[in-house]
Amino acid sequence: MRYELYYWPTIQGRGEFIRLALEEIGANYVDVARKPNRSGGVPKMMTFLDGQRLEHPPFAPPFLKSGKLIIGQTANILFFLGTRHGLAPRDEAMRLWAHQLQLTIADLVVEIHDTHHPISSRLYFEDQRSEAKRRAVDFLKYRAPKFLGYFERVLDRSGGTYLLGRKLAYADLSLFQIVAGLRYAFPKAMKRLEKTIPRVVALHDRVAKRPRIAAYLASERRIAFNEQGIFRYYRELDV
Amino acid sequence: MRYELYYWPTIQGRGEFIRLALEEIGANYVDVARKPNRSGGVPKMMTFLDGQRLEHPPFAPPFLKSGKLIIGQTANILFFLGTRHGLAPRDEAMRLWAHQLQLTIADLVVEIHDTHHPISSRLYFEDQRSEAKRRAVDFLKYRAPKFLGYFERVLDRSGGTYLLGRKLAYADLSLFQIVAGLRYAFPKAMKRLEKTIPRVVALHDRVAKRPRIAAYLASERRIAFNEQGIFRYYRELDV
Repeated sequence: MRYELYYWPTIQGRGEFIRLALEEIGANYVDVARKPNRSGGVPKMMTFLDGQRLEHPPFAPPFLKSGKLIIGQTANILFFLGTRHGLAPRDEAMRLWAHQLQLTIADLVVEIHDTHHPISSRLYFEDQRSEAKRRAVDFLKYRAPKFLGYFERVLDRSGGTYLLGRKLAYADLSLFQIVAGLRYAFPKAMKRLEKTIPRVVALHDRVAKRPRIAAYLASERRIAFNEQGIFRYYRELDV
Repeated sequence: MRYELYYWPTIQGRGEFIRLALEEIGANYVDVARKPNRSGGVPKMMTFLDGQRLEHPPFAPPFLKSGKLIIGQTANILFFLGTRHGLAPRDEAMRLWAHQLQLTIADLVVEIHDTHHPISSRLYFEDQRSEAKRRAVDFLKYRAPKFLGYFERVLDRSGGTYLLGRKLAYADLSLFQIVAGLRYAFPKAMKRLEKTIPRVVALHDRVAKRPRIAAYLASERRIAFNEQGIFRYYRELDV
């Protein structure tokens, strides 16, 4: 089965959570919008979003094509991939727990994005700079410690070094990405924060060393963090 | 099976999406935090959030207790209830589609909440009034039409009067709540918007007339909309 991932070609964004899962399972996949237009590209992605004939249109990228199936929403795609490829537990209760953790990560992702775009995604950062500053202060002081402290507690109780215990799940890959992204966006604040979340930091390091993830991170397939994605570095927000 | 729902007792909030599902399936459930403290109440809910001994602690309300299982995250709870009680399709592809729609509704809920709290949930509305005004303008002009237009398209292609076709699913109940809430929060703007989404409005009306939902809405179990929940009426934001 060859998967087709559809996501913006120049940013990690939400697509990165899917890319990490596809890489970890060694999937045969094509990152369609990153291909030249003659064989894909953003125009091909847009036909799915605008597609008048599509029965189950996705609201926004990322979405994954698997045969005839088109699946949208990051956490939903991970639920699908995880169940199929051993990145989610088989037991129903544990599978719901994995998904619950992923949805909490999704909530955190929105809050991270909104530190630089608290008013509108349509406007430039420069047009909401003072609001962003206020929101980032609140995020770093209250929200980031609350979320990261939560995952630290979950790791403490998991009975292993991963969120669900001794076996890697898709939510671990996403938590790796959260730490990597926060380090990029808020280097000073994270240095301080990381002292309080040793288990989360250790999980990040462990994921980064997994052979397929390490190979991916060193490859050209890993887009560098930049100021168009979710995690952006604006010095004035790193307080 | 008697379910225990845990959510803030004085608001509809995210808990309402769960209440609607429990009511529609005629579930035997107790809304724990709304009970007197001697048999429940907020203190009992807080023991789960603070609970040092809980193996799978929820990050925040709502969460649902089903036997020994504690499930958090609104969309995850609905996935669980829907699968168990016929509010989700049996077919895997359709079940993922239902969940995808629910996650898109969850994204919309965050954006609705942030119209009155774009800076911080910890601060009063009055402390972020000018930012709220800017965000609400953007929401009503761009985001609400985009989301509601999306659901209108989905209904147009579903082959029935519900999001998934001829059979009610949990996402329909949530879309009902979105319309009801937006009418409360933005009466003027919604009057204008509703002209462009006849199928969404018809779905709202159809859900409201379902016998168990109608009985629930008329009962004291339905908390009135107010200015502590997700949908709040501030005249200056209804532009």
